[in-house]
Amino acid sequence: MGSISANKIKFIRSLAQKKFRDEHSLFVAEGEKIVAEAQASGYKIEEIYRIEEIGAEAMARITNLSSPSPVLAVIRKPELSAEDIISALKPESKGLYLALDGVKDPGNLGTIIRIADWFGVEAIFASPGTVEVFNPKVVQATMGAIFRKKVIYTDLAELCTSFKSLELPVYGTLLDGKNIYEALPADRKHGLVVMGSESFGISEQLRPHIDSKLFIPPYPADAVTSESLNVAIATAIICAEFRR
Amino acid sequence: MGSISANKIKFIRSLAQKKFRDEHSLFVAEGEKIVAEAQASGYKIEEIYRIEEIGAEAMARITNLSSPSPVLAVIRKPELSAEDIISALKPESKGLYLALDGVKDPGNLGTIIRIADWFGVEAIFASPGTVEVFNPKVVQATMGAIFRKKVIYTDLAELCTSFKSLELPVYGTLLDGKNIYEALPADRKHGLVVMGSESFGISEQLRPHIDSKLFIPPYPADAVTSESLNVAIATAIICAEFRR
Repeated sequence: MGSISANKIKFIRSLAQKKFRDEHSLFVAEGEKIVAEAQASGYKIEEIYRIEEIGAEAMARITNLSSPSPVLAVIRKPELSAEDIISALKPESKGLYLALDGVKDPGNLGTIIRIADWFGVEAIFASPGTVEVFNPKVVQATMGAIFRKKVIYTDLAELCTSFKSLELPVYGTLLDGKNIYEALPADRKHGLVVMGSESFGISEQLRPHIDSKLFIPPYPADAVTSESLNVAIATAIICAEFRR
Repeated sequence: MGSISANKIKFIRSLAQKKFRDEHSLFVAEGEKIVAEAQASGYKIEEIYRIEEIGAEAMARITNLSSPSPVLAVIRKPELSAEDIISALKPESKGLYLALDGVKDPGNLGTIIRIADWFGVEAIFASPGTVEVFNPKVVQATMGAIFRKKVIYTDLAELCTSFKSLELPVYGTLLDGKNIYEALPADRKHGLVVMGSESFGISEQLRPHIDSKLFIPPYPADAVTSESLNVAIATAIICAEFRR
């Protein structure tokens, strides 16, 4: 087993489960690019394992990927509080924020973090029912963007109330929303955009908190088409529309 | 095994491999929604298996999914020829077409088909190096859109030449392209948009065939961010920009 003990292998494998990530406040990232991004960020790297040091067999046992990567890092989870971000908001805040209401698919969450990174979203809020951001599939899907964008789990109804109390706009995508190309104001660089879950969209409880309902129209508008766009795809189109 | 023979199980399982899909000109689709879309389309359904007929154990053996679906269909591949579509093009053709140059990830291809469906893309061309459209992961990722959108494998350089000979515009996304929000003409509803592969973008050989190079800018324009957007995400933003 080269320079890694059987106990250590067992420990790293346990971090594939949320229970143990929570217990130890650690998570795993793999691959040269992602580990390099982790090192360049302010995240605390606890351990790094390279395939040339521990051997291919040991790496195959600790990897979360179908083919073991050359390098795997065990990283400390950051301390994040919604309160810190919300208390820093001001009526003149110019940042764009996302809120995810129950996104379940790790690939979707990872892709959304990468989109948020590309389009300069300040931070991503997520309902407690959203998939955990340190799930290995999420980490890998971000391609490293996870180390540049904060994802904060919080009650989204309270979050919307905080934005509204500062007169910051709260948008949301809904099938009965208005055409996004007509509904967004000219000064649309800031505010909160709520995206719903893959299966149910924005939850019943949260809908009354949405000030401005948006919809990405199909083409032509009366087309017989897919029932909806994937949530990551919709997030990309909306972020692009805010940033154009 | 209920009402399905061991030989039939073996045969359906073989269709998970491209070799056997090609040999038999058949593919598999699963789930109530996708199978309903297949039935509503002009595709020829050869066989349908329901879990209540063949039993959960047999369904678990023939499924391509992590949890077996209630229904699985074996479907005949359509006969598609690039020539039919290209010969129907005219200088006044108003359709929007996509060309995929080596997209490898089944999830990306499936998502692109769903996007093409939403935004009324006429047809999708793909280089021979692009993942096969009847790969089960592609079929499932389309959520049924595969039965409404044609994907035709052909030489993309020849395809570009055909479009250009009719004076139809050929666009492509490249890192040295022009800001998409400024570069697209006002009458931009038609033409061919080439999207590159996940790892290499548009291939060296194909680049000289692109008339108009496009780029989706990050925000702010000089941001230190992810190296690029995922190809399905970029396709969505570009299609939305053509259709707004």
